[in-house]
Amino acid sequence: MSRDKKKAKKTKKKSSNSEQSIADLLRVGADFSLASFDPDRVIAGPADSSSAREAALALEPEVSNLHERLWAQAKGGGKKSVLIIVQGMDTSGKGGVGKAIDRLLDPLGFGVVGFGPPTDEEKAHHFLWRHIKALPESGRIRMFDRSHYEAVLVERVRGYAPKKVWSKRYDEINAWEATLAERETTVIKLMLHISLDEQKRRLTDRINTPDKHWKYNPGDLDERAFWDDYMAAYQEALTRCSTEVAPWYVIPANHKWHRDWLISQILVETLRKINPQYPPASFDVEAERKRVEAL
Amino acid sequence: MSRDKKKAKKTKKKSSNSEQSIADLLRVGADFSLASFDPDRVIAGPADSSSAREAALALEPEVSNLHERLWAQAKGGGKKSVLIIVQGMDTSGKGGVGKAIDRLLDPLGFGVVGFGPPTDEEKAHHFLWRHIKALPESGRIRMFDRSHYEAVLVERVRGYAPKKVWSKRYDEINAWEATLAERETTVIKLMLHISLDEQKRRLTDRINTPDKHWKYNPGDLDERAFWDDYMAAYQEALTRCSTEVAPWYVIPANHKWHRDWLISQILVETLRKINPQYPPASFDVEAERKRVEAL
Repeated sequence: MSRDKKKAKKTKKKSSNSEQSIADLLRVGADFSLASFDPDRVIAGPADSSSAREAALALEPEVSNLHERLWAQAKGGGKKSVLIIVQGMDTSGKGGVGKAIDRLLDPLGFGVVGFGPPTDEEKAHHFLWRHIKALPESGRIRMFDRSHYEAVLVERVRGYAPKKVWSKRYDEINAWEATLAERETTVIKLMLHISLDEQKRRLTDRINTPDKHWKYNPGDLDERAFWDDYMAAYQEALTRCSTEVAPWYVIPANHKWHRDWLISQILVETLRKINPQYPPASFDVEAERKRVEAL
Repeated sequence: MSRDKKKAKKTKKKSSNSEQSIADLLRVGADFSLASFDPDRVIAGPADSSSAREAALALEPEVSNLHERLWAQAKGGGKKSVLIIVQGMDTSGKGGVGKAIDRLLDPLGFGVVGFGPPTDEEKAHHFLWRHIKALPESGRIRMFDRSHYEAVLVERVRGYAPKKVWSKRYDEINAWEATLAERETTVIKLMLHISLDEQKRRLTDRINTPDKHWKYNPGDLDERAFWDDYMAAYQEALTRCSTEVAPWYVIPANHKWHRDWLISQILVETLRKINPQYPPASFDVEAERKRVEAL
């Protein structure tokens, strides 16, 4: 632990000198255009797979220390938590991102919740109901693999909800996400952007690899046929719902190693900003030291 | 993934030749005696910290492939899941074990649930209620950091439940755990055994390290005063509740690196026995291949 912390301090010092903010580079602003965003691009940082993976893993001591401080602060009564929302077309790598984040975090304080098509019980409730139930407790970091944004993506594109219903949801989402900030949940929203060609490569790999058949879903090809509609729906969700308290980041995700490096950077930058602190001792340290010495 | 799988096969081949079963070595039998079990002992495997950590990490490709197959099998309708129960005195390393296991697994299918003192709502229910709610779904691996065994440990030792209540719970626990086997949940129960001296060292480290004060709980010293009573309670829980379907393993836990290596071994041996399989394709593979090629 103390060795980890020393490493963490070193990393921090180095990074504050030279690094540009990846979060600032990738945050969606009002004039963002998904159509002109190249999913193949390498934005910054290591330019090849092995050095990118190494650089992401090198963040582990600092990230896990920040995570421990978030957790410890909650034990002392702190309320802060982090919610990472991951969206993207089929095969865009949502599961892979979960693994990359998990490598940097402690399992007791980190979990991934996947949201498939809503159950009958979930459909009988407001569309935010199941997401509210899954929010992180104080001190925790939780990732949503798909999220309430499906209510303005698949439900809009495939007509599962009428326009008069889904068109109101952007404002509802913004209002709800603002309440998350009030309860001290920092929200990071990541859209993993891949190209049509890259999706074809990944689907081809799945269909040609028997051990990946369980991941192959014929429905993915039906969804793919609506690609342009999905891009239009993403464009609207990204620009209407990228707020100061809950920004969207679009991740060029054709290269898995670059995707994971970018997301590790956004995570560490976000945690540095939160800057959680170990709580003060809730007991008389000197008296307890004497008790321990007397054991 | 295919590289991982090749590695996994290699590891498997090597291990089936030479390795003895760590699970068999550590499984609690009827004549087990906690008092004569040395928590300082190195039972088998690598004899120093760095090679033990390396050896545990080298299991990652095989374990994560087995975990993926468990998950995939569930997607195809399989019911199998795994529950890892971790118990031990304060500072025995329950959190550390969670991290060691997490390094080998995929976060979407693995989670740790911690059980603190029951809330008022939980107290108003049967003692198994909150544990039943937290059971793993099909395809998942879940770790309980403390568990229903607290009902025959702290509640017995500190008199929170009268003897006529806690003394019946061993049979209740065995009956319940037998139902878990019927629902195809494989149960692994780990007792992390440390010595009184080692606990003193760890408490001393906590009180002398300000960044660890949040982990220090004056109540831990009160608990320590009941050490012998706890050992008697563990002895009874271990021998009465180590069943064929839900065996107890006692882990010599004074050396963290040895503890983690032993547990990684038990995990991989258990998953090999479960031997989950990718489900057959639920679609016409040739027809789908043609659809993908035509994209």
